[in-house]
Amino acid sequence: MSEIPVAERAARIEYAIRDVVIPANALEAEGHEIIKLNIGDPIAYPGLPTPTHMVRAFQDSLSRGETGYSPSYGLPSLRSEIAKDERGKGWNCSPDDVYVCHGVTEALQIIFTATLESGTKVLAPGPHYPPYMAYPQLFGAETIEYRLDAGDGWRVDFADIEAKMDESVRILVLINPNNPTGNVASSDEIDRLISIAEKWPNCMIIADEIYDELDFTGTQTSVASRSKSVPVFTLNGVSKGYYAPGWRIGYMALHDPTKRLGAVRDGIERLLRSRLCASTPAQMGYLAGLEQSRDWMQEYTQKVLSQRDLCLQRISEIDGLEVESPGGAFYMFVRLTDSKWATDDKKFVLDLLHNEHVLVVHGSGFSKEMGLGHFRLVYLADCDVLSEAFDRIDRFLQRSR
Amino acid sequence: MSEIPVAERAARIEYAIRDVVIPANALEAEGHEIIKLNIGDPIAYPGLPTPTHMVRAFQDSLSRGETGYSPSYGLPSLRSEIAKDERGKGWNCSPDDVYVCHGVTEALQIIFTATLESGTKVLAPGPHYPPYMAYPQLFGAETIEYRLDAGDGWRVDFADIEAKMDESVRILVLINPNNPTGNVASSDEIDRLISIAEKWPNCMIIADEIYDELDFTGTQTSVASRSKSVPVFTLNGVSKGYYAPGWRIGYMALHDPTKRLGAVRDGIERLLRSRLCASTPAQMGYLAGLEQSRDWMQEYTQKVLSQRDLCLQRISEIDGLEVESPGGAFYMFVRLTDSKWATDDKKFVLDLLHNEHVLVVHGSGFSKEMGLGHFRLVYLADCDVLSEAFDRIDRFLQRSR
Repeated sequence: MSEIPVAERAARIEYAIRDVVIPANALEAEGHEIIKLNIGDPIAYPGLPTPTHMVRAFQDSLSRGETGYSPSYGLPSLRSEIAKDERGKGWNCSPDDVYVCHGVTEALQIIFTATLESGTKVLAPGPHYPPYMAYPQLFGAETIEYRLDAGDGWRVDFADIEAKMDESVRILVLINPNNPTGNVASSDEIDRLISIAEKWPNCMIIADEIYDELDFTGTQTSVASRSKSVPVFTLNGVSKGYYAPGWRIGYMALHDPTKRLGAVRDGIERLLRSRLCASTPAQMGYLAGLEQSRDWMQEYTQKVLSQRDLCLQRISEIDGLEVESPGGAFYMFVRLTDSKWATDDKKFVLDLLHNEHVLVVHGSGFSKEMGLGHFRLVYLADCDVLSEAFDRIDRFLQRSR
Repeated sequence: MSEIPVAERAARIEYAIRDVVIPANALEAEGHEIIKLNIGDPIAYPGLPTPTHMVRAFQDSLSRGETGYSPSYGLPSLRSEIAKDERGKGWNCSPDDVYVCHGVTEALQIIFTATLESGTKVLAPGPHYPPYMAYPQLFGAETIEYRLDAGDGWRVDFADIEAKMDESVRILVLINPNNPTGNVASSDEIDRLISIAEKWPNCMIIADEIYDELDFTGTQTSVASRSKSVPVFTLNGVSKGYYAPGWRIGYMALHDPTKRLGAVRDGIERLLRSRLCASTPAQMGYLAGLEQSRDWMQEYTQKVLSQRDLCLQRISEIDGLEVESPGGAFYMFVRLTDSKWATDDKKFVLDLLHNEHVLVVHGSGFSKEMGLGHFRLVYLADCDVLSEAFDRIDRFLQRSR
């Protein structure tokens, strides 16, 4: 008998960040040690543990027996604290606007399920975090990329957005700080984005602000705080700025300044109820992170920043690499200047892995067009590990010339 | 400006078990105490806490700093232990066949995403757990119900399945023990189900066995253990039999006896990688539950069983109620014999809630056709609470005559 067919939408899913783990695991199984700079997981590297007060709050919740289901939209105490945090970012967020999910990933799945139809579009930055391409097509929709300017710090190209907007664009995405480039949009740029979106009555904005606590520029601004016209889904959570990605807790917060999200909100709430709830005790850990002092973040950010600076220094000295300095998050999107790799960054990544046992992610995994000839590097490892990785990358580039 | 349209698929989602919580919450906000017998959450009731050794293992994992991402398919140690457990149920399950999810709910979402196309069907029992109706339509597929025999313990009606099978049926669902009826299928019945499915080359079986540790008959059998021809997705997890629903850890295990799931498995793995992973430390708590002694389960089951027996006794004494004795899980699906409620069980549920402050779920929320004139009752509360609930139900029935 022949194979049972897979649904085409599932066969089309790509997630470059974990797809490259498969050959790396094969090498590890043979006994090789791999320097892994592919996954944005601070816990995978020493020196950036989840803060103790958050871990303890999670454990205390377990000790109190809080192991049953929680309300589908999130624990009221957590929704309230998240709303307070968002209000501190400059917009009128109520606890009822906040919905707690299994990380930002589930929030994205739910937003797309509730808003996209066959023939609609998502306009997302190129390059972008892969689910923005992978998920809309599950619902017959299409993701179109707008250009980030590779030669100017990966800033948003507004002319390109304007040229690509039409009535079928249901969602305009801003990832700020951006993954994979680290670009931070200014408030003027955000205002410009909103002014473009507001010309199209069915267009909403997804503001993916999961890296907002990792802003080196001091200028990162909430999109919701600037919008008086366009509905905004703000995405954030415990994974990155609070250093607990394995807890799987994130949220969406709905900003609806012109009261047009009633039906969409009802659809989102139906979807949330059908899937029960996010982890109950993990929500208590996140609550502690939001409620208690965040002074610890400065030290963490300083560590990340010193690692960024080392990488920038090393790249400036290596023939064959160029990079725009990232203003936030913990990624850089490195350009391979040798024409040899300009159209085959995946071969670069796999050859580097096999020859030098350093794992990064091919740029085309973040944008088939605008990521070509690049790779994404996560700079969460200690400086000596990063330095060793650059020694190997340099050696590889010299040998492959 | 007018409202932004919701995607029709999201507007159609219903999840009766939590939809009825909305009016109950409104009453609670007014200061009323509600006896809630609507949600299958053992932790919501006293006397059935998550076992201490599992809680401690979860906490220990947090203490060890296991708060980063884990592999997308699950921690290798947990996949291995689940495979061992499934082998103990009689089929050759390898760790690679096991995929850990955010509960059975996410496993269902992923299976449907990877297998359904527009024009395909899911054949599910009527009545059934609501997501079996809510999710296939997300992908343009349709759920058709096969009849469970209300007059004969809610046994599967095989003639009805045979009449409804055709080449568009991609998935045949068995929930065993069944939610909401508590029926346990015998191994002969399972064999008959498999022999029907094997006539249709693209038909797979979902065996939802999340209640298999709550089997009062001693006859519950793994579907995968009986199938030599039809691919089976076995679903299970920590929520019910291990009394930790708020941890959100479940799994699917793929049984592929004729090696026809290659493409489907690839699609499932792509989807799993794109959504990162299930909670890392929670997986360690489940692992402890699987590895260590399960002697504690006997006492828990005895408590649940004595509550079932009290309910059966009370129902037999109340004019207006009838029920088939459940063989497993912790639900019963009660028939309202007064013709007044025969086509409006939702009104019964809402009137009972408002008049007597007892919350159950309307039967039509589990099957528009076969659930009419019924309600689902969760018998996890203590006997004195259940007894008080039946006093109120009796009084309500008498007054409403």
